[in-house]
Amino acid sequence: MELKTKGNLETFFEAHKVAVIGSFKEEWTGGYGVIKNLLNFGFSGHIYPINPSYSEVLGMTVYPTVNHVVDGIELAIVITPSQIVPTVIEQCARKGIKAAIIVSDGFAETSREGAELQQHVVSIAHDAGLRIIGPNTIGITNTATGLVTTPYFTGYNRIQRGAVAYASQTGIVGAQALPLEDHAYPISKICDFGNKCDINEIDLLEYLADDPETKVIAMHLEDIKDSRRFIDIARRVVADKPILILKPGRSQAAAKAVASHTGSLAGVDQIYDSAFRQAGIVRLDTWQEFLDIPKVFASQQLLTDNRLAIVTVSGAAGIMAIDSAVDNGLTVAQLSSSTIDKLAKISPRLANNPADIGQVAPFIDNFHQALESVIATVLADDGVDCAVLILWAALAAEVLGTSDVFRRLKQQVSKPMAIWIYGPKLSAKEELTRQLEAIGLPTYLNLETAAKALGIAASYAKFKSRLEHH
Amino acid sequence: MELKTKGNLETFFEAHKVAVIGSFKEEWTGGYGVIKNLLNFGFSGHIYPINPSYSEVLGMTVYPTVNHVVDGIELAIVITPSQIVPTVIEQCARKGIKAAIIVSDGFAETSREGAELQQHVVSIAHDAGLRIIGPNTIGITNTATGLVTTPYFTGYNRIQRGAVAYASQTGIVGAQALPLEDHAYPISKICDFGNKCDINEIDLLEYLADDPETKVIAMHLEDIKDSRRFIDIARRVVADKPILILKPGRSQAAAKAVASHTGSLAGVDQIYDSAFRQAGIVRLDTWQEFLDIPKVFASQQLLTDNRLAIVTVSGAAGIMAIDSAVDNGLTVAQLSSSTIDKLAKISPRLANNPADIGQVAPFIDNFHQALESVIATVLADDGVDCAVLILWAALAAEVLGTSDVFRRLKQQVSKPMAIWIYGPKLSAKEELTRQLEAIGLPTYLNLETAAKALGIAASYAKFKSRLEHH
Repeated sequence: MELKTKGNLETFFEAHKVAVIGSFKEEWTGGYGVIKNLLNFGFSGHIYPINPSYSEVLGMTVYPTVNHVVDGIELAIVITPSQIVPTVIEQCARKGIKAAIIVSDGFAETSREGAELQQHVVSIAHDAGLRIIGPNTIGITNTATGLVTTPYFTGYNRIQRGAVAYASQTGIVGAQALPLEDHAYPISKICDFGNKCDINEIDLLEYLADDPETKVIAMHLEDIKDSRRFIDIARRVVADKPILILKPGRSQAAAKAVASHTGSLAGVDQIYDSAFRQAGIVRLDTWQEFLDIPKVFASQQLLTDNRLAIVTVSGAAGIMAIDSAVDNGLTVAQLSSSTIDKLAKISPRLANNPADIGQVAPFIDNFHQALESVIATVLADDGVDCAVLILWAALAAEVLGTSDVFRRLKQQVSKPMAIWIYGPKLSAKEELTRQLEAIGLPTYLNLETAAKALGIAASYAKFKSRLEHH
Repeated sequence: MELKTKGNLETFFEAHKVAVIGSFKEEWTGGYGVIKNLLNFGFSGHIYPINPSYSEVLGMTVYPTVNHVVDGIELAIVITPSQIVPTVIEQCARKGIKAAIIVSDGFAETSREGAELQQHVVSIAHDAGLRIIGPNTIGITNTATGLVTTPYFTGYNRIQRGAVAYASQTGIVGAQALPLEDHAYPISKICDFGNKCDINEIDLLEYLADDPETKVIAMHLEDIKDSRRFIDIARRVVADKPILILKPGRSQAAAKAVASHTGSLAGVDQIYDSAFRQAGIVRLDTWQEFLDIPKVFASQQLLTDNRLAIVTVSGAAGIMAIDSAVDNGLTVAQLSSSTIDKLAKISPRLANNPADIGQVAPFIDNFHQALESVIATVLADDGVDCAVLILWAALAAEVLGTSDVFRRLKQQVSKPMAIWIYGPKLSAKEELTRQLEAIGLPTYLNLETAAKALGIAASYAKFKSRLEHH
């Protein structure tokens, strides 16, 4: 088998013949959990369970070792005690397997002995041209094939296919930790690279740069192995796809904890800050932003400028949206007199930016029709580049009516939008969020994040256009 | 009837005899909606529906005017077209009613004529010693009596009684806009003061300062009528109860929008900033913080110092918590050698701050017992003042086991805690959140907000102790 990319990451993500090597005791956390998730998420490839002590698991034949499998195997998922990982990896190498995810922990993250064991595994793999993700990882997800390698309970079985790739040094990015179905994040790939004994952020970045499913790359990085090279590559990738990075360890106390968590030095934070900025990498501040902001790039077209319209069910929220917009580099659009006239025809009190549709709601016959007209009208204005939309959802009819509005708007309008929904029932908010995300509209838990997402999108667009004019 | 406080706010919040004056067409948004909510939320007082065109609503007798009611009425909720509000208020005055909430809009917030109409209403009320909240408000909530005056659909009927008072210039603070049941915010009173034609933030502050149910005051203010007096009073109140203010209009663009939204000038933002700081008022940045941060003061005892322990199911989240903690003035506590020894007995890998219980979970028999011991151990350390706890919830058993842990911990531990829960199912996160909030533990949607809440609590405690030593 030829290595298609330097990091061999296609073999990982596109694998269709997958061995799961571990315990098949019927509980979450072992090989049983991995297979259960592969089945639950509808993995389209073939699974080969491997364990000398079992003959069957979940209706499948279990093979004593990978060498007992007649077919070729593309990817091994290893979730055995750390002590036997070297033997397992030797067997994988002998079988000609070129990619292994070592889920097992007990390596460099725990002790000096663990670090030595990890080094031993790496040398076996290196000699055989076998690439490793991990150890100490929940592995990867490919929404196109249902490849979900976490061994833990998720409680759902559907992840929305989309254009955001998440890469991370933590398992909290996995299906067992994030409500991927409930939030309907549009995801292409997820990778937790764990201890990064082999595959690291540079390999991932190169792979994701070429991945046609991925339009935006979000990375959580506690340390960067070769920061100069990473920045060089990122600079090239950014011309084509936005890169958003959450890099904790800003404070000295956190940097110290990173060192003990990953066994690596976090580096001087200000240096990263300026290197990221120069390379056009967006630096995110919080975990919630890491989850929420990338999707604005996945579903919305690129911004042309930073002039924002706000359509809101609450006047007070409209004002808060302005503050957040200005904080994040957007300006409040000046509506043209023709737009003002059109809005005034719907209601004189709407002829503003923010257009406060809440205050006129009691006086209009068809609220949803008016909402649609107002949004379409402000976004048709040549002086408007994007919109924050503030909605209310409580009744099932409200949810349905609102998602219908946006289904129709998506046919007419291509300028970027970001949505915040408030309301008295979480279930209604969440249902409307899922419906709008499914239509391809980024919908946010917080008003401020909605405005920030568009602000970041505008800054990226400006950076990219400067690159193109050089 | 004697006015007990300057603003007569006890008459509003403690009213047991309440007239609802408006349309009783069976739909949300009118008098029918107000009565429906009073019934849904179990209002313990008596309701008098008033409307000359109806004889019965929801099984209750409707009176043509307040003067047809034989009993005394303490509070009138007015939700008629704005044009007839003067007549209604005249009738209320004649009846001897001393408190009216004017829910109706169409006053100063809409036009010059509206402003004149509002002034006319005020002069009628003033002559009669009748105080007004509003107009253009969803009114008030008193969780102790089930007094919930919003006319809009909520979809739930229980608000957790607690010690946070919210005051606001927007209806988004109301039961129809916030998932008060789903989030189990611990609430004493809510007041939307709308156009503030009479009762304003100063009246409210004075009332809440003396309200035994309220331990913390959160105010959303777009403008402050008499800022010098407000700050003077706030300075006194802060010695006893923390005041947290969200004041939008930081940007010029937002200040302009405030002027058109409320008809008042927002004032120079930096002046507020420094006046707030000098008075010991905490200024909040976002709407989510406005909702989430106050509760740390409602349920947790005052901090003595700023030394934080972190117990986490995710090592990476522990590091992010440190960054947020340091950003918000906390320090990472140095655990004593005896604490380290005790943690090491549970597992050598736990003997740190953050204590990463996630990495040892596979090796311990009883996870919940270990979680309880670890939290109790770090909080027993004299060098630890508070803790951020990072939990995972997905399975029902997990939710139950975790809430049992905290029920037991509440018996042993009195130092402040703030909790962040992550997990793959929103329903499980939300269920555990409700259970922990019911036990009296502030639980957060975002990790960063949990750390910030404790940081703000520590700053307030320091400010208060400086005041006491002067």
